[in-house]
Amino acid sequence: MTQTDPDIFGTKTQTLIRNIRLDGKPAEIYLDGTGNIASVGEKIKDHDAEFIIDGNGATALPGMVNMHAHSPMSLLRGYSDDMPLFEWLSTKIWPTEAHLTESDIYWGAKLACLEMIRTGTTTFNDMYFMMNNVAEAVDEAGIRACLSYCMIDGGDHEKFEKECSVMEKTVATLKARANPRIIPGVSPHAVYTVSEEGLRWCAEFSERENIPLHIHVDETDENPDCIKAHGMRVAQWLDHCGVLSNRCIAAHCCWLDADDIRLFADRGVTVVHNPVSNMKLSVGRALPYPELKAAGVNVTLGTDGASSNNDLDMFGEMKTAAILQKFFWNDPTIMPASEALTIASRNGAKALGINAGVIAPGFLADIILVGKTVTTTPAFNTTSNAVYATSGLAVDTTICDGAVLMHEGFIPGAEEILAKSERVAFDLVRRATA
Amino acid sequence: MTQTDPDIFGTKTQTLIRNIRLDGKPAEIYLDGTGNIASVGEKIKDHDAEFIIDGNGATALPGMVNMHAHSPMSLLRGYSDDMPLFEWLSTKIWPTEAHLTESDIYWGAKLACLEMIRTGTTTFNDMYFMMNNVAEAVDEAGIRACLSYCMIDGGDHEKFEKECSVMEKTVATLKARANPRIIPGVSPHAVYTVSEEGLRWCAEFSERENIPLHIHVDETDENPDCIKAHGMRVAQWLDHCGVLSNRCIAAHCCWLDADDIRLFADRGVTVVHNPVSNMKLSVGRALPYPELKAAGVNVTLGTDGASSNNDLDMFGEMKTAAILQKFFWNDPTIMPASEALTIASRNGAKALGINAGVIAPGFLADIILVGKTVTTTPAFNTTSNAVYATSGLAVDTTICDGAVLMHEGFIPGAEEILAKSERVAFDLVRRATA
Repeated sequence: MTQTDPDIFGTKTQTLIRNIRLDGKPAEIYLDGTGNIASVGEKIKDHDAEFIIDGNGATALPGMVNMHAHSPMSLLRGYSDDMPLFEWLSTKIWPTEAHLTESDIYWGAKLACLEMIRTGTTTFNDMYFMMNNVAEAVDEAGIRACLSYCMIDGGDHEKFEKECSVMEKTVATLKARANPRIIPGVSPHAVYTVSEEGLRWCAEFSERENIPLHIHVDETDENPDCIKAHGMRVAQWLDHCGVLSNRCIAAHCCWLDADDIRLFADRGVTVVHNPVSNMKLSVGRALPYPELKAAGVNVTLGTDGASSNNDLDMFGEMKTAAILQKFFWNDPTIMPASEALTIASRNGAKALGINAGVIAPGFLADIILVGKTVTTTPAFNTTSNAVYATSGLAVDTTICDGAVLMHEGFIPGAEEILAKSERVAFDLVRRATA
Repeated sequence: MTQTDPDIFGTKTQTLIRNIRLDGKPAEIYLDGTGNIASVGEKIKDHDAEFIIDGNGATALPGMVNMHAHSPMSLLRGYSDDMPLFEWLSTKIWPTEAHLTESDIYWGAKLACLEMIRTGTTTFNDMYFMMNNVAEAVDEAGIRACLSYCMIDGGDHEKFEKECSVMEKTVATLKARANPRIIPGVSPHAVYTVSEEGLRWCAEFSERENIPLHIHVDETDENPDCIKAHGMRVAQWLDHCGVLSNRCIAAHCCWLDADDIRLFADRGVTVVHNPVSNMKLSVGRALPYPELKAAGVNVTLGTDGASSNNDLDMFGEMKTAAILQKFFWNDPTIMPASEALTIASRNGAKALGINAGVIAPGFLADIILVGKTVTTTPAFNTTSNAVYATSGLAVDTTICDGAVLMHEGFIPGAEEILAKSERVAFDLVRRATA
C-alpha cells in the first residue's frame, strides 16, 4: 500500500512537483489546478501549492500517447498466442468477441485504462465496439482517449446503413458526455472489410464532425487484392474514396511504397507504428520509417490490442520500435532514442489535436515520472534510459489533465478492477466455449 | 521500504513459499535450507519452516539464466547509443574501457547483479576483464555466475603468452574462492581477435579444467573474412582449432548456415540468442532458430552488455526473442511462449552444468515470483503473461541457492549500490574524456 495522502488523487489541484529531472537537469513543475502546466523551472518560488509531490530524482516525461488500441481486448490477454493469424482470429478471437456484452466491454476497458495509467500512458486512440462503455471506463479512470466505433459492412448495403446509424449514435453519445478528455472519432475497419460507400461515408462524416478517422492500412500486404478489386493500391483507393486527410490516422502501414508515402505526406495523414504486434503476427515487413520521416509524415506509436502484443506498455513499444527500425533497415542510427520518445508522445498528441506531449507552461498537464531505479542508473542520458533500459512498470507517478491518477505506483481502486476484470474474462471465455 | 522481516535475506533457511501458482495451478514450495528444493505440492504439510513467504497469487518461475553478458558494462548504460557499430566502439566504448580500474569493474558488476536480481535472473554467464572483481560482486550479491576472462591476442605471440597467463591466474583465483555459486570459464573473444594458437590453447585449457568456453560467433557475418584468412567458414575454423565441444557456448550465431548448424549439433555446442543487442546494433540477420531447433542444438538466451541493450532484463529479452523469430522467419507459430521460457532458464542451466531451471524436488532453489499485477491479468496462461505481457520489474521475489535475495521488490543495500555505481560511472567517463 502507500503512504500517499489519499486526497491527492483524481482531481485537478494546485500541485508542485519537485526534486525531478527534466531533459537531464534538475527541475520543478507547478500545476495551477486548471489542468494545464503553469510553470517549469529549476526552482519555482511563486506558487500556491496544496500538494507537493517529491519525485526523489525521478525523470519527468510527457505522458505516453498510445495511438492504436482496442482496449476491451485486454480481457483476452494471453487467451491464445503463437497461432497462424487467420486460425487465431477465426477459432479464438472472433468466436469470443461474438459473446461480448456491454459489461464485458466496460471491464475490459477498465483493465486497459488501469494498465495504461500504471505504465505511463495518458492518452489512447481506441477502435472497437460499444464505445460508450469504453467512455464510461475512460471517464472514471481520468485518462484521455479518442474513441471510435469500428465500422465493418462487408460490402452489404443493409449492413452499411445499420453501421452508419451506430456510428452517428456513438459520436452523438460521446459528444453528449461533454468530457474534454473524451474525443469522438470514426473508424472504418480497413479496405478489405468496408465498402466504397462505407469508406466515403466515414470520410464525409469525419469531415462534417471535424473528428479523427482511424483505420487499419497495409498491416499485411493488402495491395494485390486491392489492385485486383479496384485497379489501384490501397493508398490510392483510400484517396479515391476521400479518406486521406489530416484527420486520417492510419495504423500499421507496413507495406506502403514510395508513391503511397508521398501521397500520405501530401494529404497530411498520420501513421501509427505498431512494431510488437507486427512482429508477433509476422506481417512480413517493418514500417518504412526512414522514408516516412524523410517525407515529413507525422509518425506515431501504438501497442495494438493486448491480445496481439500482449501488453499496453508504451515503454516496451518505444524500445521495440527503435531496435526494429535499426534492424530491419540495417542502420543503427535510425530512430535514436529522442525520436522514439517524440513519436510516442508529442506526435500522437498533435494528431489528435491535443495540446500535450511537451512539458512547458500552457501545455496540458499530462505528465509522468519515471522513478530513479536500477534500470535508470547511471543517468548519463535519461531519454536513452527511458527508451532502451526500462519498462512502464518503472513509472511511479501518472498525471493526466492536471489530476494525479497514480502516485508511488498506487492507483486507487486498482485491486477491485483486477479482481473483477479477471472474473469477467474467465466468464466470457466460459460462455464463448460452452 | 518494506515490512519484510530483514532476517529473511541472504542465507539459506527453511522457507515455505505459499499462495503461488506453478504452471497455472495453486502450489506451495518448501526449501529445506540445503539450497535445494525439498518439496513442491498443492499443500505442503510436512515442513519445518522458519520463514513463510506469502506469494499473494504470484507465479513461480525458475530463475532466469542470462547466458551472454559483460556485467561491468552496466556502468556505461546510456553513455552512447544510436551510432554506427565501429564508430561507437572506437570513439566511445574502447576509449572508456581503457580507463577501467578494478574498483570500476567491481561497482559495474555490483550494479549488474542488482539489476539481475531485481528483474529475476539468478545465473549469468559473463565475459570481461579483471574477473576476480566481478566474482567479489557475485559473491556478495548471492547470485550465481560463470565468469570468464576474455582473451584478445590480435595474432601477437607475446600478447598471447601474457593472455594465457592472465587466463590461468583468473581460473585459479576463481577456483580458490571455493564458492559453489561461482563457475570459472574461459573466453577467447572471437575468431577475428584471437589467433589460431589462442583458440587452440583456450580449447585445450577448457578441456583440461573441464570448464565452459564462452565465445562470440558470427554476430555480424564473419565468414567472408574467415574464408579469406583460413579458407573455411567460422564454424569449420573453430572446429579445426578444437573449440567446438559440449563445453562451448557460442553467443550471437546470427550467420550460421545449414552446415554450421549440423556441425554445432554434432559437437554439442550451446548457442546464445541475443535478440535485443542484434537488433539495436543492426547485425543484419536473426538467429536461425527454427533450423537450430530442428537440429537439436541447445539454444539459450542472453542480454549482452548493458551498453548495447541497454538493460539486463531477461523478460524483455524473452519477448523480443519470441517476436523477432516469428517476424524474421515469417511464421507466428515459431518460438511459442513456453519455448521462450525454457530457452531463458532450463537450457542455460543445462549448458553451465547447473541443476537448475526446473521447479521440482532435488533441483537447486533458484526461483522467482512474478507478482500478480495488471500486466499478468487475466491469468489465462501464466507463461504467456510472463513472456509477452510483463517486464522483469514485475518480479517480486528472487531466490538463489535457497537464499532470498529480493522480497516484495526490496533488496538490502540496493540504494547504496545505485548511488555509488552512479558516482563511479560519471567519474570513469570524466577520466576517459579528460
